[in-house]
Amino acid sequence: YGKNTIKFLRLHKEGKKDVVKEVEVCTHLRLISAQEYLEGNNSLVIPTDTMKNIVLVLAKKNGIPTIEQFAIDLCKHFMTTFCQVAYIKTYVQEVPWQRLHENGVPHIHSFICVPDGIRFCEAEQCRNGPLVVFAGIKDLKLMKTTQSGFEGFYKNEHTTLPERHDRILCGELFCKWSYGECRDFDFDCIWYTHKIRECILEAFSGPPDCGEYSPSYQKTVNSIEMNVLSKVSQVQVIEAILNNTFYNVVDMKNLGVTNDKEVLVPVETPYGSCACTLGRKKFLEA
Amino acid sequence: YGKNTIKFLRLHKEGKKDVVKEVEVCTHLRLISAQEYLEGNNSLVIPTDTMKNIVLVLAKKNGIPTIEQFAIDLCKHFMTTFCQVAYIKTYVQEVPWQRLHENGVPHIHSFICVPDGIRFCEAEQCRNGPLVVFAGIKDLKLMKTTQSGFEGFYKNEHTTLPERHDRILCGELFCKWSYGECRDFDFDCIWYTHKIRECILEAFSGPPDCGEYSPSYQKTVNSIEMNVLSKVSQVQVIEAILNNTFYNVVDMKNLGVTNDKEVLVPVETPYGSCACTLGRKKFLEA
Amino acid sequence: YGKNTIKFLRLHKEGKKDVVKEVEVCTHLRLISAQEYLEGNNSLVIPTDTMKNIVLVLAKKNGIPTIEQFAIDLCKHFMTTFCQVAYIKTYVQEVPWQRLHENGVPHIHSFICVPDGIRFCEAEQCRNGPLVVFAGIKDLKLMKTTQSGFEGFYKNEHTTLPERHDRILCGELFCKWSYGECRDFDFDCIWYTHKIRECILEAFSGPPDCGEYSPSYQKTVNSIEMNVLSKVSQVQVIEAILNNTFYNVVDMKNLGVTNDKEVLVPVETPYGSCACTLGRKKFLEA
Amino acid sequence: YGKNTIKFLRLHKEGKKDVVKEVEVCTHLRLISAQEYLEGNNSLVIPTDTMKNIVLVLAKKNGIPTIEQFAIDLCKHFMTTFCQVAYIKTYVQEVPWQRLHENGVPHIHSFICVPDGIRFCEAEQCRNGPLVVFAGIKDLKLMKTTQSGFEGFYKNEHTTLPERHDRILCGELFCKWSYGECRDFDFDCIWYTHKIRECILEAFSGPPDCGEYSPSYQKTVNSIEMNVLSKVSQVQVIEAILNNTFYNVVDMKNLGVTNDKEVLVPVETPYGSCACTLGRKKFLEA
Repeated sequence: YGKNTIKFLRLHKEGKKDVVKEVEVCTHLRLISAQEYLEGNNSLVIPTDTMKNIVLVLAKKNGIPTIEQFAIDLCKHFMTTFCQVAYIKTYVQEVPWQRLHENGVPHIHSFICVPDGIRFCEAEQCRNGPLVVFAGIKDLKLMKTTQSGFEGFYKNEHTTLPERHDRILCGELFCKWSYGECRDFDFDCIWYTHKIRECILEAFSGPPDCGEYSPSYQKTVNSIEMNVLSKVSQVQVIEAILNNTFYNVVDMKNLGVTNDKEVLVPVETPYGSCACTLGRKKFLEA
Repeated sequence: YGKNTIKFLRLHKEGKKDVVKEVEVCTHLRLISAQEYLEGNNSLVIPTDTMKNIVLVLAKKNGIPTIEQFAIDLCKHFMTTFCQVAYIKTYVQEVPWQRLHENGVPHIHSFICVPDGIRFCEAEQCRNGPLVVFAGIKDLKLMKTTQSGFEGFYKNEHTTLPERHDRILCGELFCKWSYGECRDFDFDCIWYTHKIRECILEAFSGPPDCGEYSPSYQKTVNSIEMNVLSKVSQVQVIEAILNNTFYNVVDMKNLGVTNDKEVLVPVETPYGSCACTLGRKKFLEA
Repeated sequence: YGKNTIKFLRLHKEGKKDVVKEVEVCTHLRLISAQEYLEGNNSLVIPTDTMKNIVLVLAKKNGIPTIEQFAIDLCKHFMTTFCQVAYIKTYVQEVPWQRLHENGVPHIHSFICVPDGIRFCEAEQCRNGPLVVFAGIKDLKLMKTTQSGFEGFYKNEHTTLPERHDRILCGELFCKWSYGECRDFDFDCIWYTHKIRECILEAFSGPPDCGEYSPSYQKTVNSIEMNVLSKVSQVQVIEAILNNTFYNVVDMKNLGVTNDKEVLVPVETPYGSCACTLGRKKFLEA
Repeated sequence: YGKNTIKFLRLHKEGKKDVVKEVEVCTHLRLISAQEYLEGNNSLVIPTDTMKNIVLVLAKKNGIPTIEQFAIDLCKHFMTTFCQVAYIKTYVQEVPWQRLHENGVPHIHSFICVPDGIRFCEAEQCRNGPLVVFAGIKDLKLMKTTQSGFEGFYKNEHTTLPERHDRILCGELFCKWSYGECRDFDFDCIWYTHKIRECILEAFSGPPDCGEYSPSYQKTVNSIEMNVLSKVSQVQVIEAILNNTFYNVVDMKNLGVTNDKEVLVPVETPYGSCACTLGRKKFLEA
């Protein structure tokens, strides 16, 4: 296969305001041929430079109404234009520029980068197969300072971890879900109206006044998925990975001090992650 | 000298709510002796492990009321406790955890990392000298999509850059200012009431309804410094560095398309930066 | 699934000499159960802390004769010890410490890190399935300054790339091959005697006195795979990915200078990669 | 000031062989004026684009005989050409491409990147001041598995570190030395004939058959500096910084195993560094 990544900015005006979308687009092609590998015959090869041009021209002509729509349009363009393409996947992620506000007034042309979770999407198609669409959020760093434990786990002679019922739960979340076969969705509407991001944060945190006890990273990952599936009907399957950061309460006995979970240090090794994929028929591939 | 970096979390409760501060503390010592280097005589050397313990014990005992106060307390502790210390600098930076909100209600124990600028500070002292305090913000990524140009610059036979009056201004800002000799400041009050961060953003952007034309990165850097100095009386000297990202309008003529500053690509090489330091007496060391 | 990464050093003596192996080990488990995700029942969960202990104890008891053997032993240990494990994959990569030499004499206890390609391996097993072993090399940065071109490719209205017969070929190579079902191999012997690394470099470069023309990245990737398959009988299937760095000859006409492929700049966007997997039956999945 | 970084490749032929130099050049200017900051008057400003052109044209015309000579030539060019320049510093670092060999035969056009220490240099000049030249090596990762300890250090109530006489010494070394005022040196000759790199490795390691005991990181840093100063007469002053990685012997008592310094884990927090600058008159600024 061949792969190509390009980063660019798409500007347009809405009224007097500038609207900016900066995206990174990765185009991934597989051809029906093998002659370029076996014989050095390049006659069917689409240069990465051409792939780049297509991405830029499409962005110029169509704009980027939503990143999902742009990924779909790119997919269709490649499938339609090049009969030698056997498979195409397009990945688009957005640089999280936010409009600046001064005393609540939105600025017409100034932006700040706020990377509290990166929105991305994918569109994928095999020749003669359906075009399927995915969306997701990554690099979302979350922490619960309490209401988290880990008890009753499997023990044997290699177990040294004590049971804990009040630890810190902290990690970086990756979530990706499938919208199934490409349909005429308003993807930003799903994102914003159905508040997928809020669903995730809500399931991670529990109610604001009391939270909700997490018996494990695994259960929290599952709760996030269940919440999204139950509230966003367009989501077919959802996958979530939580890359954990563990924090240890520092033992200060030798320093003559009692540390009652007030000072903690992140433990960089070992780090772990847990992942789970959940679909509508309650099929679980843990 | 010897240097030591440690990252840790300080937790405490305010009413029912958990308050979290995660900081990275770097302690930098110079001793009056040279025997440890010349002779391998370690009798005056303070191990990095001890430096780490001191940081953690102080955090446990005093908490971290503000990062500036913590840096000052650390400085004083080292100077007072160890007569072999000739110089000390403490650097503290904060992980930007923000409390989560659900429908406007603050969550009692859940946080999200929002790295839209990292707050840091330094305290510094030579034996028998004053303790001076610095604060700053770094990794602040900003963009103006218009109202920026660069014209009338010096030209010779190596000049190929065209004059532009409507380019993108984008960069990563580093700002550091001195509060002068350590006094009994409420540093969070200065930060939040005087809105240093807002001063910076405001000077970068100009008025929200029309913006303000920037004739160069240099002038923008200077405007930011002037604004902070004029509005925050406690600031003695301010330094700002803007690491520029240039964007080129993609030439699409060969592709049969007219691109009217709608699609731009970031130019990774060359990248530049400009910096300027400004004090109260209008002394300029550019 | 659950995943755990740990980095550690294994020391032993051979005669008077210290031998050092520093490795990063990632253990990846999938359990037969789903109750930990669905119900928060942890009774079958193996904590990452236990996984870490097992890795360290095994390294202490067996040493790390080869990274492949260590990955296999780990796999077997988990499958044998824990009947709740449905699937296990172990990944081991080696920090490239090399013994220092002074005037040709090997030093008994001093090492330098020489990261000119990182050796890694994987062992993988589903319950009741075969244990399969992979090995590979990654982060291998290579360059040919000539004897590389790209001509005769597919062209349409989005093509702007000129044909070139004397460009720079530069990239970072990732190679991974399967030894098939686990057998009693001496993996270091295969590595060193059959000179897999040399096979790769040789196929990339061609004969030292004249080189060999590469008509595309794709063909070079394929040549590398063919060479390894033809010379190392234990390799069943091989996959290679070349992440390209393109270099452009700088146009200096406007500066009054003729640049005859003497000064080139790396083009950071777009970057591309090409990959190919080749097995013994000439099956090609490009 | 203004700063500009550019990465490029310089190719030339020696006989039939291609010779490649890939460098990263950073040019740092301070002007005599302040009007560009204060008034937005750009008439003396040298655009980063022009700085880039000058670097590339000079590389094309002069080649890069040594990175030091190139840094000097750049410095001189800017001082001579632009009377508005008050200060210039040029920094050049080299990508460590090494010629590939097949069975001992050097390849005419193929190279591999071997980053076991990065060579760099600086040239610096104030208007009417001398042009001074520095050179150095960085990112040199070294390890001694024994013959290292740390004992007899300062102790108080915050000390928990035990004394050790057989620990691992591991770190990343940065070394930078001054050749003083620019003279007609053959810098590659100094580098290769006087074997500065070998001086450093030798002082770090001690004799190959038995090594040499290091009582501290500090003493090792000093030994490296003393060795270079004593063997390379052109070096005026030398600075060295060692960023330490500590390794802890894993306590396996609870796992029923005795670990006799066979399995160790790197301790990522706290990490420390120690630095020292040494000149010819034995002046020590630790």
